[in-house]
Amino acid sequence: MTQATRADEDEAPPTADAGRSPTAARRLLRDGLYDGPTGSLAAGRLQTALVLLPEQEALAFATYCQRNPKALPLLAMSRPGERRCPQLGADIDLARDLPAYRVVEEGVVAPDEPPDIEDLWRPDLVAFALGTAQPLEIGLLQAGLELRHRAEAHAAPLYETNIPMEKAGPFGARMWVSMRPFYPADAIRAIEAASRFPKGHGAPVHFGDPGAIGIDRLSKPDLNPPSRVRDGEVPVFWASARTAEAALLAAGVRFAAINPPGKRLITDWEIDRARG
Amino acid sequence: MTQATRADEDEAPPTADAGRSPTAARRLLRDGLYDGPTGSLAAGRLQTALVLLPEQEALAFATYCQRNPKALPLLAMSRPGERRCPQLGADIDLARDLPAYRVVEEGVVAPDEPPDIEDLWRPDLVAFALGTAQPLEIGLLQAGLELRHRAEAHAAPLYETNIPMEKAGPFGARMWVSMRPFYPADAIRAIEAASRFPKGHGAPVHFGDPGAIGIDRLSKPDLNPPSRVRDGEVPVFWASARTAEAALLAAGVRFAAINPPGKRLITDWEIDRARG
Repeated sequence: MTQATRADEDEAPPTADAGRSPTAARRLLRDGLYDGPTGSLAAGRLQTALVLLPEQEALAFATYCQRNPKALPLLAMSRPGERRCPQLGADIDLARDLPAYRVVEEGVVAPDEPPDIEDLWRPDLVAFALGTAQPLEIGLLQAGLELRHRAEAHAAPLYETNIPMEKAGPFGARMWVSMRPFYPADAIRAIEAASRFPKGHGAPVHFGDPGAIGIDRLSKPDLNPPSRVRDGEVPVFWASARTAEAALLAAGVRFAAINPPGKRLITDWEIDRARG
Repeated sequence: MTQATRADEDEAPPTADAGRSPTAARRLLRDGLYDGPTGSLAAGRLQTALVLLPEQEALAFATYCQRNPKALPLLAMSRPGERRCPQLGADIDLARDLPAYRVVEEGVVAPDEPPDIEDLWRPDLVAFALGTAQPLEIGLLQAGLELRHRAEAHAAPLYETNIPMEKAGPFGARMWVSMRPFYPADAIRAIEAASRFPKGHGAPVHFGDPGAIGIDRLSKPDLNPPSRVRDGEVPVFWASARTAEAALLAAGVRFAAINPPGKRLITDWEIDRARG
């Protein structure tokens, strides 16, 4: 991915600093000049998953996150109705700062992913910013480990498991996981490195036999392309923020807006704040 | 403190195992046979502060805890109206299992501390179990450090500071802290040991000059007797769960029930679950 955009040359170029500055990156997204994955924007800054829910469901969802910090590490909550989120960034607009929004209505994902939800904004929406695998993957790369799905140029394969989440109110889906293959010695290093990011899913939840956590075939992920697992490698499974979407759908929430995979909220936080 | 009680000799003695078994300890408290501090009950099990609040204020209080994990580490939340808390213990009754309850009505602490709140129980109450200094103090003792207030046979001195808490809804008091004096080398060891208990206030928030955090006189704590600070020792300050009571009072909540200091909720959790 590059930062090339449809920026109007007549304007001060909003993209100039988007690779490094979180403010510039959010402006780029807010102005609708880029709608792709956020991975290469605002280097060194934490990116989070975003769940916007009406206040009526917010207490139960907060409880659900509190009970399941491995899959849903809760980094920030907004005041009901407030589009800003000063905890995470000086100028955040929760209704516009994702590249695109996935909208859930009556428990069903809407077909379109609009670039903003200004028209759908409600005065009772509460935002939940949740940790993702972003800091974890950076930590693995810094530890000198290869991430197979990156070498294969796709997002990590995701699977629904039979691992039960602790229920809270209407929320109680099974855990979703991402998979990264490693040789055992590297798997151990990956576990060490990942355990230092408790706010980014932390240590994995399983390795080895996929069937033990209800995954039938590694070659058929529930989302994203599969990653090749070489002879002698073991698949290592981490809790995934995708669990949030599954929980919202299973609960049949009347309204929610969330980030599409890979299109995350860019915060002002240094990535190290996801460490323990 | 001993476990001596007014146990009826005609019954199976409920106190026999209260020093070790969390179930026996809670039964002792539930039956009104003991109303003192819980420190020596259910050795090795985590004890928590307890805040019971109507659902109307619960989302804001959850947000307040989420934003201030140092003072208010959130260990569990109950379902509204549910007197049980299966996350924390098999048989917990939130309306009866504290030695005594401190009741807040219209922002004022009621003069009596009843042994249960069965009559005051409401179907909209949400429980927040918050980490306390209990695991921290055990960790300090295990590290071979002396706790001055224990040597002086009183609870740690508590002070209101000028350290602002992150606000959420009506909640936004200043942080309360506990103070323990150490020589510098021991203070460093205390910081190391405490940092391993992020769910029990973790590392201190300040050491040295009390005035820097708004404390006028160490010899005049806002709560509990002072601890002697020897020549060459530095006062070390930890965030305190007392902050929760201050926040509830400052917010003028219409109703809340909390634990009196030192009279905590006994859980089934091993104390090590307060580690990071």
